[in-house]
Amino acid sequence: VKPFVMFGHNHMFGDFLDLVHANGGRLRTVVQNVPEPVHPGRKTLHERLQFVLDPCSPERRPYEIAVQSIDSFVPHPGDQYLIGFTGHKMSPLTAMLRSNFSIVCEPLIHPTAYVSPTVCPGVIIDARAIVSSGVILGEHVIVHKGVIIGHDTVAEDYAVIRPGARIAGHVRIGYGAVVGMGATVIEDLAVGAYCVVAAGAVVIRDVEENTMVAGVPAVRKKLEQN
Amino acid sequence: VKPFVMFGHNHMFGDFLDLVHANGGRLRTVVQNVPEPVHPGRKTLHERLQFVLDPCSPERRPYEIAVQSIDSFVPHPGDQYLIGFTGHKMSPLTAMLRSNFSIVCEPLIHPTAYVSPTVCPGVIIDARAIVSSGVILGEHVIVHKGVIIGHDTVAEDYAVIRPGARIAGHVRIGYGAVVGMGATVIEDLAVGAYCVVAAGAVVIRDVEENTMVAGVPAVRKKLEQN
Amino acid sequence: VKPFVMFGHNHMFGDFLDLVHANGGRLRTVVQNVPEPVHPGRKTLHERLQFVLDPCSPERRPYEIAVQSIDSFVPHPGDQYLIGFTGHKMSPLTAMLRSNFSIVCEPLIHPTAYVSPTVCPGVIIDARAIVSSGVILGEHVIVHKGVIIGHDTVAEDYAVIRPGARIAGHVRIGYGAVVGMGATVIEDLAVGAYCVVAAGAVVIRDVEENTMVAGVPAVRKKLEQN
Repeated sequence: VKPFVMFGHNHMFGDFLDLVHANGGRLRTVVQNVPEPVHPGRKTLHERLQFVLDPCSPERRPYEIAVQSIDSFVPHPGDQYLIGFTGHKMSPLTAMLRSNFSIVCEPLIHPTAYVSPTVCPGVIIDARAIVSSGVILGEHVIVHKGVIIGHDTVAEDYAVIRPGARIAGHVRIGYGAVVGMGATVIEDLAVGAYCVVAAGAVVIRDVEENTMVAGVPAVRKKLEQN
Repeated sequence: VKPFVMFGHNHMFGDFLDLVHANGGRLRTVVQNVPEPVHPGRKTLHERLQFVLDPCSPERRPYEIAVQSIDSFVPHPGDQYLIGFTGHKMSPLTAMLRSNFSIVCEPLIHPTAYVSPTVCPGVIIDARAIVSSGVILGEHVIVHKGVIIGHDTVAEDYAVIRPGARIAGHVRIGYGAVVGMGATVIEDLAVGAYCVVAAGAVVIRDVEENTMVAGVPAVRKKLEQN
Repeated sequence: VKPFVMFGHNHMFGDFLDLVHANGGRLRTVVQNVPEPVHPGRKTLHERLQFVLDPCSPERRPYEIAVQSIDSFVPHPGDQYLIGFTGHKMSPLTAMLRSNFSIVCEPLIHPTAYVSPTVCPGVIIDARAIVSSGVILGEHVIVHKGVIIGHDTVAEDYAVIRPGARIAGHVRIGYGAVVGMGATVIEDLAVGAYCVVAAGAVVIRDVEENTMVAGVPAVRKKLEQN
């Protein structure tokens, strides 16, 4: 059982825990690098940990996961690392982990994904994603559940492809861009750096960097939160 | 080979037959509880049964499935039960089966689904669906082929999630609500009881109960058939 | 290892190469029947072949694939054949292969597809597609990655269903029609011959033949390229 350390807070905690276990690992520690954001009506990480059952325990005991601050973090030989959130906002954390601790996150690919790409450090590919031949995924790109990426497409560092999105062949997704849940990007297009493609949007033209697009076909919207 | 009894008519007969076989079962009897609805241009159950071949017979003989009325139904020890249609209109039937015959339908999950939820009696999860960690599915919820449901989402009793729909994390789908084929519901939303989300709709706001929504983004429409 | 011969140019080369290997085959020859179309910014077939590595070679040597013109083509006993592009424009080629060389392309189904249909010669079903019971797929129909086709649907010869599209039950897709990436077609509809359903469209009414539809819900557009 490979021990895993997750940096971050509880965003997508359930998905990432599943990825760790599906890869024969075990989440031993969560290292919080920033104060945890508050979502009214959602459990905090500490509250959630009390409800997570140990999948390796027949008696279904609680899963013992240590939580510590980044200030007291010391790397441990043999540990695997992953970042508990996604997108370009993690880049200061990944840079710090690399420079201060020589930590590079291994790719984490769900065994049910169907993948033949070139993957860089920190790439995460979740359950049932299909990544076609000739695809290149940059550092810390996350490909969520059930995504389809066509042949020869490139996603640059920190791009996020949300669940069920479909990206055709020969597409370029820029640095830190986010393709929303169930969105569609047709072939030969470029989606610029830091763009946000809204959920369900159908992109049929290039998207300039730092732009949000939404709708069918996708048109430009004011980018509110970037 | 586990014998199965299906209550209802021939709606989705092919899908449910496949689910039975993929679970190592065999459909022995269809019990018709109401007169079969007539769809012009579609075969009736009796007509269809003449074209179903026995998958366990090397000679591809017709599949012998008895059809009987609910009036002469007597439960048989060891039989498994399923309902041959979906949604909240089945609730009088499930209540009657429970009170008159102590019949509770077991969950029926396709072996190709990727599932880690808490499931209640009568839940059906079809091929290649992905149900993430922390999801709770109420009684007789049906999750169709290729659906993706995000972490910590709840679907209440008799909810129907049609093929290829994507529901994000932390969503609540109300009692008897229907999420249409290929629809998308983004995170943290509530879709009220008896709502209908049209095929391909992208839901980005809460939906009041008893409402139909359609479009990208989804807006309210007159609810015609409920 | 079954030797495969692909007719056509390099459109979708990566996807089809993967299908060949997933079926235990090996692409030995590409036979070019027409001059290769030029896409600015894309590699030609010859350029691409220099970057394809031999998946059976531990040293990752280049994959040796012969390229020849149709004029010098001679069939070879034991070879399998596939067409390297899709849609009704391949019909003169398939007719010529049949009449001049008695070549009929075997169906090519990815082992990760979940399929129970009646398939005709030349059908291609790519990774993770779901084809439900009672479906009939005509000659040279292609069902791309992650498509969902509901029970009792019919797709006529040369129809193309692009990645992630969802087609409900009891639908009829006409000869040579194209259903775009991520499009949705609800139940009981007919999409006429040579129609184009745009990416992301949600079809809720019958579509007359030779028509293009787009949007949510899908409405008629001028058909530009047919």
